Amino acid sequence: MPMVQITMLSGRTADQKRKLAQRITDAIVEEAGARRDAVIVAFHEVSRESYASGGVLMADKSK
Amino acid sequence: MPMVQITMLSGRTADQKRKLAQRITDAIVEEAGARRDAVIVAFHEVSRESYASGGVLMADKSK
Amino acid sequence: MPMVQITMLSGRTADQKRKLAQRITDAIVEEAGARRDAVIVAFHEVSRESYASGGVLMADKSK
Amino acid sequence: MPMVQITMLSGRTADQKRKLAQRITDAIVEEAGARRDAVIVAFHEVSRESYASGGVLMADKSK
Amino acid sequence: MPMVQITMLSGRTADQKRKLAQRITDAIVEEAGARRDAVIVAFHEVSRESYASGGVLMADKSK
Amino acid sequence: MPMVQITMLSGRTADQKRKLAQRITDAIVEEAGARRDAVIVAFHEVSRESYASGGVLMADKSK
Repeated sequence: MPMVQITMLSGRTADQKRKLAQRITDAIVEEAGARRDAVIVAFHEVSRESYASGGVLMADKSK
Repeated sequence: MPMVQITMLSGRTADQKRKLAQRITDAIVEEAGARRDAVIVAFHEVSRESYASGGVLMADKSK
Repeated sequence: MPMVQITMLSGRTADQKRKLAQRITDAIVEEAGARRDAVIVAFHEVSRESYASGGVLMADKSK
Repeated sequence: MPMVQITMLSGRTADQKRKLAQRITDAIVEEAGARRDAVIVAFHEVSRESYASGGVLMADKSK
Repeated sequence: MPMVQITMLSGRTADQKRKLAQRITDAIVEEAGARRDAVIVAFHEVSRESYASGGVLMADKSK
Repeated sequence: MPMVQITMLSGRTADQKRKLAQRITDAIVEEAGARRDAVIVAFHEVSRESYASGGVLMADKSK
């Protein structure tokens, strides 16, 4: 019954999330022996003002 | 000081969340002996494009 | 497909967790209209040195 | 590679989040010996209808 | 800077986690355009007494 | 009522966690205007086999 929670910047398309959910579920089924139906994936999307690495908001980084 | 984090599809009313918070807090106070004031419940609501089970987005499932 | 994650101090018995899982699932099914099979509850138990409120570790609080 | 996830009511400004990310990262680098670049902070902001303490939604509390 | 948190029953080998981390990271890099170095995966392993589906602890389910 | 969840490698001392909890709480009180008593910090510690960056377990990285 694995639960996968992914925190990432918002902006990904539904199709990107579709493929991510599929491939991550495949990996968990094939490598960890989980039952496919039991794998849940949730995407928590945050803005560039709500995400920091190295102490600096993504909104403040030059691309 | 239990923290409860609930990830679910968006679309529940305030009243549904009100009752959920109340009943979940009741359960934790009564069964786990927590102090009522110390129980925190947060709802993280995600869209049907951000939630998958069995490797398939909720948005792609027929009802 | 609600996922419930509970962070609490370790030390609860299996029976306490059994009742918590049952009552929390009941609440979600009855108040939020979720399908029972789709509700997942996980307990993340932490030690008194890994939990703080008000900036003070539980291990440092007098009972 | 510490990951910090903060769940709080929405409404903080970018500047408040900027300072929080900075100070929390400073603390982790200085007290836990993490490499600065490896510290990630994410803010999960929820509405007053999605946050409860003591079994009562923030939306239902008198200020 | 995607953060992936996986909650699952304990008991997987290091090699299973190694392959999971690799494949999940591959998926995020290839499908979501993340920088490889920025992807973090953490496994939170819980016992069969700390995980329930359908309101029933895994410890109470017959295989 | 901010909740702070920190996922990091196990191995930090109680004193390191004590100082982290204190400084992170200070930051949230001073920068975000939270009430001190309402700030909760939890440390989720994982082994080097349960944490990966760049698709590689910490256990597999040379120091």
